[in-house]
Amino acid sequence: MRFCCDCGAPVTVRVPEGDDRERFVCDQCATVHYRNPRIVAGCLVTAGEQVLLCRRAIEPRRGFWTLPAGFLENGETVAEGAVRETWEEARARVELEGLYSLYNLTHINQIYMFYRARLATPEFASGAESEAVALFDADRIPWQSLAFSAVRDVLQHWQRDRLQGRYPLRTADIRVAADGRRSIHPAL
Amino acid sequence: MRFCCDCGAPVTVRVPEGDDRERFVCDQCATVHYRNPRIVAGCLVTAGEQVLLCRRAIEPRRGFWTLPAGFLENGETVAEGAVRETWEEARARVELEGLYSLYNLTHINQIYMFYRARLATPEFASGAESEAVALFDADRIPWQSLAFSAVRDVLQHWQRDRLQGRYPLRTADIRVAADGRRSIHPAL
Repeated sequence: MRFCCDCGAPVTVRVPEGDDRERFVCDQCATVHYRNPRIVAGCLVTAGEQVLLCRRAIEPRRGFWTLPAGFLENGETVAEGAVRETWEEARARVELEGLYSLYNLTHINQIYMFYRARLATPEFASGAESEAVALFDADRIPWQSLAFSAVRDVLQHWQRDRLQGRYPLRTADIRVAADGRRSIHPAL
Repeated sequence: MRFCCDCGAPVTVRVPEGDDRERFVCDQCATVHYRNPRIVAGCLVTAGEQVLLCRRAIEPRRGFWTLPAGFLENGETVAEGAVRETWEEARARVELEGLYSLYNLTHINQIYMFYRARLATPEFASGAESEAVALFDADRIPWQSLAFSAVRDVLQHWQRDRLQGRYPLRTADIRVAADGRRSIHPAL
């Protein structure tokens, strides 16, 4: 952010009075511009013993498999965003079964929230951001070709939880070390 | 938003190519400015049979009781934001016990997430945005003086759930009718 989106004057970075952290502040119109994390909403879609994955057609991680997910839009509930993204990326109609995971990715200011869902109609197809969409048997998940740590983690939980038939909310913080390595820390 | 925060040129509102909804777009530098919901993180803090409430010192709903909560900041996990807000508004140190509720307030593009927590040390006090902080017995909650629908709803759930000793995630959509009346719809 370099300019005030309200008045167009250059912004400066400083701690506003009564605040305790640096913000983008417009000294012309006095607006403080806050920046907040964004929610990524998606679905872990199952059909019997199988799970639906999308192969990404876009960067980052083009060519790798992921769960359908994307940024929550203004005016949407988290559940509505998860259903919409599943339609956009996998052309799949789903019935939600409950919130299943919450991942904090503080290094990129994103909060991932995945719902469990089941395929409501048998059809699916590649949306604009997917180059393939497929159902995988639970014991044939392409572990070496998954796009993101959060996707791997939620699929690992699902693989185990399905044996018990119980799906408690799974929460974790994903951290990135200086060398770029990701680590996953179970959390509340 | 009237000006591009990257280059300072006026923005226009239109549907970008490949998109399906209106965005603020800068025709000078081609940046699309997305707007997304914000997370409000907070805690339902208990001490034995009591719950900690804050009387708001600021608008909206000044003078009404609420749970300590506020906007999640960049760089924070949802849990960290909930703990920080509890410190800022109630000067209370807490130990989180788990995510308890998720409320979608689509009319203001906010997602409320409350954790259950217990008071870790007996001290608490009014923070800058509170004019009073107090512990209330579970059967003496000031129902007529609560600030927000989401706060009332999560306290109602807590009152019942505590009798069972089980606290499943409570999710609901809060909608506002044309006449301003709020309604709460349990959701997934």
